Parts: sequence; structure tokens; C-alpha cells
Amino acid sequence: MENALKNENEKFYIGLDIGGTKILGALFNDKGDILKRDKKKTKADEGAEAIMKQIAKVIDALIEEIDLDQVVALGAGVPGIIDGKNGIVIFSPNMNWENFRLKEEIEKKYGLKTFIGNDVNVGTLGEWKYGAGKDFKNIVGIFVGTGVGGGLIINGAMHEGVIGAAGEIGHMVLNPDGPYCGCGSKGCLESYASKTAMQNEIMAQLRRGRKTLLAEKIESEKIIRSESLKEAYERQDELTIEIIDRSAYYLGLGAANIINLLNPELIIFGGGVIESMGDIYLPKIEETALKYSMPKMFESCRIKPAKLGDDAGVYGAMGLILENMK
Amino acid sequence: MENALKNENEKFYIGLDIGGTKILGALFNDKGDILKRDKKKTKADEGAEAIMKQIAKVIDALIEEIDLDQVVALGAGVPGIIDGKNGIVIFSPNMNWENFRLKEEIEKKYGLKTFIGNDVNVGTLGEWKYGAGKDFKNIVGIFVGTGVGGGLIINGAMHEGVIGAAGEIGHMVLNPDGPYCGCGSKGCLESYASKTAMQNEIMAQLRRGRKTLLAEKIESEKIIRSESLKEAYERQDELTIEIIDRSAYYLGLGAANIINLLNPELIIFGGGVIESMGDIYLPKIEETALKYSMPKMFESCRIKPAKLGDDAGVYGAMGLILENMK
Repeated sequence: MENALKNENEKFYIGLDIGGTKILGALFNDKGDILKRDKKKTKADEGAEAIMKQIAKVIDALIEEIDLDQVVALGAGVPGIIDGKNGIVIFSPNMNWENFRLKEEIEKKYGLKTFIGNDVNVGTLGEWKYGAGKDFKNIVGIFVGTGVGGGLIINGAMHEGVIGAAGEIGHMVLNPDGPYCGCGSKGCLESYASKTAMQNEIMAQLRRGRKTLLAEKIESEKIIRSESLKEAYERQDELTIEIIDRSAYYLGLGAANIINLLNPELIIFGGGVIESMGDIYLPKIEETALKYSMPKMFESCRIKPAKLGDDAGVYGAMGLILENMK
Repeated sequence: MENALKNENEKFYIGLDIGGTKILGALFNDKGDILKRDKKKTKADEGAEAIMKQIAKVIDALIEEIDLDQVVALGAGVPGIIDGKNGIVIFSPNMNWENFRLKEEIEKKYGLKTFIGNDVNVGTLGEWKYGAGKDFKNIVGIFVGTGVGGGLIINGAMHEGVIGAAGEIGHMVLNPDGPYCGCGSKGCLESYASKTAMQNEIMAQLRRGRKTLLAEKIESEKIIRSESLKEAYERQDELTIEIIDRSAYYLGLGAANIINLLNPELIIFGGGVIESMGDIYLPKIEETALKYSMPKMFESCRIKPAKLGDDAGVYGAMGLILENMK
């Protein structure tokens, strides 16, 4: 690694995963190896200038030992609706950005060719190029954490949609009379399957006087940790089993609808919940997906866990550069 | 037209819409004008050989006045799962075909370059190239008749999926506890919105003693005609209004899910039901789609009625040739 950084002929790439809480950065070589990492708080509540300073700190740390001229380009994933072609963040509640010219800002400061995309699309791109999706061309990524997000690779290209908002799998309605969702709609996949939904359900059941091993955790943790859910599940806590089953069931329904609509060859499940409990979730998801999808289409679709964990974003940002420069 | 057929330098194209009941054929010139049409019964229950004879009759009628050498290629839409690359009908219950090498059969008999695709995908392609979807690149076609079918145009290309079965919009689950669907799943869009679903609901309500203007029609018509539904609706028949509202509501939900997932710029609604009652259906569909989709994505998506009616299939078959030969 050290040597690579000191080789003047080496070409480098910067991948950023810009989130509402933290900014992850990685310096890549030509082969897609990570040579260096950095991480800073986003400071999203302090405004665009503060965020840009934090981004700059990450970039500066990554290029500390190399010459800026050796960096070919920078890629970044950002939550929200992204106009990738023009490098504009159309709308990002997490970042408090609206019509923010992120590409221009970075290019102005560093003279670095910059490409941006939606964080979940970029994460799916990462899994496609460097993770569970290698050698596949039609992939749907579903990421389950505090929310449920998705990304689409269609015929070997990232599908961004007409305003860069494609892949809102979490807001697929699975029951029009279901619970209200944060988006204002009802019965969305997210309102059944996300960690937030699980937490809400646990709290509601606690208020009804039900017992659960999670009672204490839910008070001490701001949002329940996947590890806590896993532990209670393994200790056969009845309520935990119930809500995880429900979450997995609706994820299976979502997968079935995607199989029937897009006939993909691979669905990758990732995000914190799947990372800790993939072995519990995936068989349940497959069982439901089989029940609700067309048999021949189900057979032709593999369902796999993500491989890159938190690195999917920076790898995807690297992939975004290569996709745009090829 | 006559002149065109007698011009020895003119190039022609054959478009076929092969259905379980009838085969529609059209002869096109270079500009995509229909010069001649033909139509025969499919005779699907008499086996593959009988069907091929009927297809041959349509082709023979179309080329009667021209030289076979003047025909550049033939395109065909067929219901079922189609392997377009190899020209094989993988599975078509309507035609009683399984792994049927349709392309090879036609090429062997006529020496005509042949391209095949799923009928609904091909119909959507027709609307894209010659109908309501001109100048758009991301289109979803939803066709409502005895069933509900769909086709996808993604980034300016027909999306067939990994086994050629993409677009099964009719089997998107909108309520996992909904009515059983013919596909074996439950609460599919088709089980609420198709003419078959409406007919089943009318019959169930008749058995409960409800009155409707459709009572007689439903006895005399094998499957209720869209025109009969329209007439009863306009005469403010209460049950008819109820089932049409329900059908449109679920179509709106399906549209919302598609908007959230694919972020398309256009959804085209077609098929017999929409052809007769588009002015009744479309406002209701839009109202529900707005309620259940993300506002910015809804705003960026137009919803339009199909333009080509029964001709979508043959136009699409012509489009399929051009797409494959470009």
C-alpha cells in the first residue's frame, strides 16, 4: 500500500459515500483496491458550507501522500433524488440540499472530474462491480436498515429513472389499507419491514403489556440495533420472532413483485438488518417470494446477501467513475 | 397502396400478432405504413402444425401480390415466455407451446429473417414507436382486458428480463390477503382489475341478490363486453360503478408502485377496457397513483391512453424488426 502511494505513475480514484450522519471516503488504485480510507461526521445540520468543509477534509486526508494530478476522478453517492447527468442533488432531506450543484462545487475546488449518484443506486453498483453481483447484468439491490432502499441494474447499466429517483422499493405499496408510512402513503414495504417499523411495533406491543427481551434495549438504544434483535430472536423471544417474521414476509412479497415485474437474475439483500441476520431472513424471504411470484421467473432469479457491508458505497462510487468514463 | 405493392424496388416488412384466438397480420413499407392486412383463426387447440398452417395462410395472403425477396424480415408477438434471442417460445399456455422453435419454423419455410417477442412487450413497443409513446424512452405499458398485462421500455430498449418474462404487472401483489388469482398467488392486480375479476364480482353480487343492469348481459355474453360495462356505468348502475371504481383504484395502485420503482416518464394504459372507458378510468387511476406514489416522481410521469388499439401488436412486430436490425 505504502509503495503504491509513492509510485508517481500510479493512477488513483476517490470514492465517497456521503450520508446524513457520516462521510466515508476511500482511495482506490486502477484495480479497484482500497489503498486508504477516511471518515468524518457530515454536520448536515450546519448547512451546505459546513458539509462541503467536511467533504474537503475527507478528500484532503485521502490525497495527503499523493499528487492531486494522479487522481483520475472522484465518485460520490448521496441520499435523495440525484440528477447524475448534470451532477445536481435535486432533493435530499438528509443533507438539507435542494438543487445543490455538488459536482460543480467539487470540480471547482479540486479540478477533479466528478460523478455523483443516489447512494442506494451507487451501493447496488458497488455490489454489482465488486461484491455479490459480479458477472450478473440484471440486478435489484434491496437494503434494509432504518428504512428500506433499492437500486436497479438493468441490462448492465445503473437505472436512475427520468429524474434520478428510481429504485424506491421501500415505498412499494403491499397493502393499501396497511399502516401509514413516513412518506405519507400507506402499507409501504418500509412500513412493515424496516427497523423503524419493527421498533414501532415492539413499542406498541409493550404498551399493550406484552413481554419481550427487547424491553430494556428499546429504552437504551435510540433505534434498536440489529444485533439486539438478533440476540432476542436467538433466545426465542416470541415478539421478536413475530416482528422479524413479518418483516421478512413483506420483504419476500416485495421480492416477488420485483421478480414478476423485472424478471431479474439476481436480488441482493443488504443493509444492517441483513448483515446481522441474513441467515435468518433469507430463507424466509425466499419462501414468501416463491409463493407470490411466477414459478419460472422465481427459478431464474437468485437471491443473495450483499458482500461489501459498509463499503458498498465507496466501491459503488469507484464503479460510478468507471461506468461514466468507459 | 396498390402502387406500392407493384413497385419492384419497394422493401416490405411483415408484422404478426399471434394470439390464442386469432392471428393478425400486416404488411408494412419502409416508412411503417400498413399496406395490407389479414386475419385468421389460430386453431390453437388443433396443435402446433395447425397453428403453423394458419400463420402460413396469413403470410401467404400478405405477400400474394409481391415478391418474397422484397420482404426484409418478419416480426411476431406471441403470448407467454419468449426467448427473443433464440426465437423460442419457452412457454405459452394460450398456444399450447413449450420450447417451440417458432423463429426456426418460419425461417425454414419462407427463408425470412424472423424476430419474435412476448405479445404485450411487443404491443408496448408498438405504442412506443408508432403510438402514444413516440419521443419517450422510459415507458411502461399496462393493458387491461380479460387479464392485465404489461410491457417495459427502459432507456430506449424493450426490457425482456432474463428469461423473457418481464412485465407481469398483472401479477403484482397489492394485498397478500386478497382474492386468489388464476396464477395461484393472491391479491394480484389482475384479480381486482381485469374484466374477468369484474365479471366474477358481478356474478358473486348477483348471487347475493343485488340488482344490476348487467344481469342479462352477463348471461348472454361469455365474458362481459367492455361496451356493456360502459353502458351500465353511464346509466349509473350502482354495482357497475362500484366494480369499475375498484378496478381503476387497483390500477392506480399498480401505477404508483411502478412509478416508485422505475421512475418512468410515461405509463400507457391500453386494452379493451381502456379503449372503451379510458375517459372514465384514467382520472380515477391518476387520483390513486398520486395518493400512493412519491410526489416528485408522480409529477415527472405522464399517464396516457394507448393510441393503436388492436393494431399495437402488428405495429410492435414491425418495431421489433427495426430494433433488431438497427
